[in-house]
Amino acid sequence: METALADYLDDFTRRDWQTLDPDAVTDPVRIAVVGLGWFAREWALPGIARSAYTEATVVTDVDADAVEAVAADHDVTGVTPEELRSGAVADEYDAVYVATPNATHLEYVTAAAEQGKAVLCEKPLESTFDRAERLVAACEDAGVPLMVGYRMQTDPAVRRLKDLIEAGVVGDVVHVHATMSQTMLGELSTDTDQWRLDPELSGGNALMDIGIYPLNTTRFVLAAEPEQVYGTTRTEHEAFAGVDEHASYRLTFPGGVEAMCSVSQNAQHASRLDVTGTEGRVILDPAFYEREDRGFAVVRGGTRVDVEFEQVHQVEEEFAYFGHHLLADEPFYPDGEHALGDMRALDAIYESADTGLPVDLT
Amino acid sequence: METALADYLDDFTRRDWQTLDPDAVTDPVRIAVVGLGWFAREWALPGIARSAYTEATVVTDVDADAVEAVAADHDVTGVTPEELRSGAVADEYDAVYVATPNATHLEYVTAAAEQGKAVLCEKPLESTFDRAERLVAACEDAGVPLMVGYRMQTDPAVRRLKDLIEAGVVGDVVHVHATMSQTMLGELSTDTDQWRLDPELSGGNALMDIGIYPLNTTRFVLAAEPEQVYGTTRTEHEAFAGVDEHASYRLTFPGGVEAMCSVSQNAQHASRLDVTGTEGRVILDPAFYEREDRGFAVVRGGTRVDVEFEQVHQVEEEFAYFGHHLLADEPFYPDGEHALGDMRALDAIYESADTGLPVDLT
Repeated sequence: METALADYLDDFTRRDWQTLDPDAVTDPVRIAVVGLGWFAREWALPGIARSAYTEATVVTDVDADAVEAVAADHDVTGVTPEELRSGAVADEYDAVYVATPNATHLEYVTAAAEQGKAVLCEKPLESTFDRAERLVAACEDAGVPLMVGYRMQTDPAVRRLKDLIEAGVVGDVVHVHATMSQTMLGELSTDTDQWRLDPELSGGNALMDIGIYPLNTTRFVLAAEPEQVYGTTRTEHEAFAGVDEHASYRLTFPGGVEAMCSVSQNAQHASRLDVTGTEGRVILDPAFYEREDRGFAVVRGGTRVDVEFEQVHQVEEEFAYFGHHLLADEPFYPDGEHALGDMRALDAIYESADTGLPVDLT
Repeated sequence: METALADYLDDFTRRDWQTLDPDAVTDPVRIAVVGLGWFAREWALPGIARSAYTEATVVTDVDADAVEAVAADHDVTGVTPEELRSGAVADEYDAVYVATPNATHLEYVTAAAEQGKAVLCEKPLESTFDRAERLVAACEDAGVPLMVGYRMQTDPAVRRLKDLIEAGVVGDVVHVHATMSQTMLGELSTDTDQWRLDPELSGGNALMDIGIYPLNTTRFVLAAEPEQVYGTTRTEHEAFAGVDEHASYRLTFPGGVEAMCSVSQNAQHASRLDVTGTEGRVILDPAFYEREDRGFAVVRGGTRVDVEFEQVHQVEEEFAYFGHHLLADEPFYPDGEHALGDMRALDAIYESADTGLPVDLT
């Protein structure tokens, strides 16, 4: 027993998907980074650099100053969005990472697909379900692999949580609570001239930007698809006019298992996923933000274990998985079809918020 | 600042409602305990004995053996239910505590009211809203004071949580998550011949028995009434046939503030109340069970304080408040009208579970 515990702890942060030795990689996947917002600068570029399977070679953004500064800092090629889309430097990259405003994903992904490049696209996949479907179709038509940037899915804490559920450690899942909130105007930036506040560019705010985390992570760890959603959105402050500032939603999974979720762009920072089953309970708290460590607890009967582990760089793990699977010629799990499941559910939650009624997804 | 913190910690478990010196009480309120289930034996009788304002003098139950054993143990008068209802020993008690199956509260409370006795009735108040209304009316007609046994409301941790919200420490409340679960057949008893599993006696199971805690505690700490409810119930195991084994519900408070709640009689023990606002967050975890200590945390910005305090005997606090307010001739806060608010909401949640639609309470 004690040896089994030691093995469990030793293997906690293992990459269960890794078959290629990272030290043997001589030609990492060369990535063009499209969109140089704070996440790309602070998290994606460092993640790409840390991962043995990837390297950034090209960057672009609508902000020419940002391109110039980042290109110089990282010693990579800076191009205009037009140059990127036209394939002017297509021989300098193998894959394209798209981290632009939601409603511009389609144009960049379509261009990359036409160039025959593999794509890692940020989530939500696009601003509407229809545009997201077109994005997925563009990759399918071109025969290029598409991964979607669900960084939670390659986080070892999330994978271990899923493993525990799959192994029956919590028994049958009874219900899930998930919450994620931040003060978007304050914690990250005080700039109200943001694309996330523009419904045309974002497709929505609290639900689209952070609601997707409880939604997608619950789908992932339960390995199940919601059959019905019911939700509400709410906007109180002028800065959020036209988009949702707060949202709550319930996801009903097969067998009537319900996930009770809430998100806010204007509340005290919180981040928690709590899965309760007939025989145990697993908790991630903090859960969802790249900028915080994950907390991991398992409860069964009267015993609770809090696992403290060497935290990974979450975005390094995501890019390592992306690069690894391209080099190994293996399919991605969080692919376009998977991402369309979120777009469908998000659309339905907005519809439910409009009508005040539950919306069936099946 | 530092002195203020010291004062806060020193006063954490204060009885803010106490005006009569407990050491000066010479004639505590004499209580007849009606119903000798495990809660009455394990928690209420010890609570009554610990409280300076109360003493148990009479006990009754449909189980004559239990009456005999408890009467001997506690050196009190044991009577039959008929004797209690007829007032045969009415000169031996000032007040009646009713802890019988839900659907029998009405008969005992009515009898006590007709004897002019003050009443402390367990929650839920009765098995249906209609019967609960008759119970409240019986006390009003007789002019006897009625308190309802919401032990959370006299717990200092809950009162301090409410104080923090009232003082604006969390800003505007944005959303609430609450969950409460146990393995009713296992954690407490393996007996499936229980009144809680009989819908005629209980009026329902998961919602009525434990759903009332997240519901009532949220009402109490927010000092607000839900305007709409939406819920589902679910029964998977044969032992729970005819009643709800699991339930989830959403309470919508004024301004669109939503409480996302889940309860289960057949899940890993869990007990948590989490109130997130624009400027802070307060958490009780563990929250709801008399048999566990309360955890108390306050978060504002990047700072989290976990307050560890001298835990009270929760049921002593409840009876102390009851006895104190009778001796001081002060009105109870959790009274019959307050309890009808829960009965109305519970009824509406069951209705919502039947129809699949939200139900307005206003």
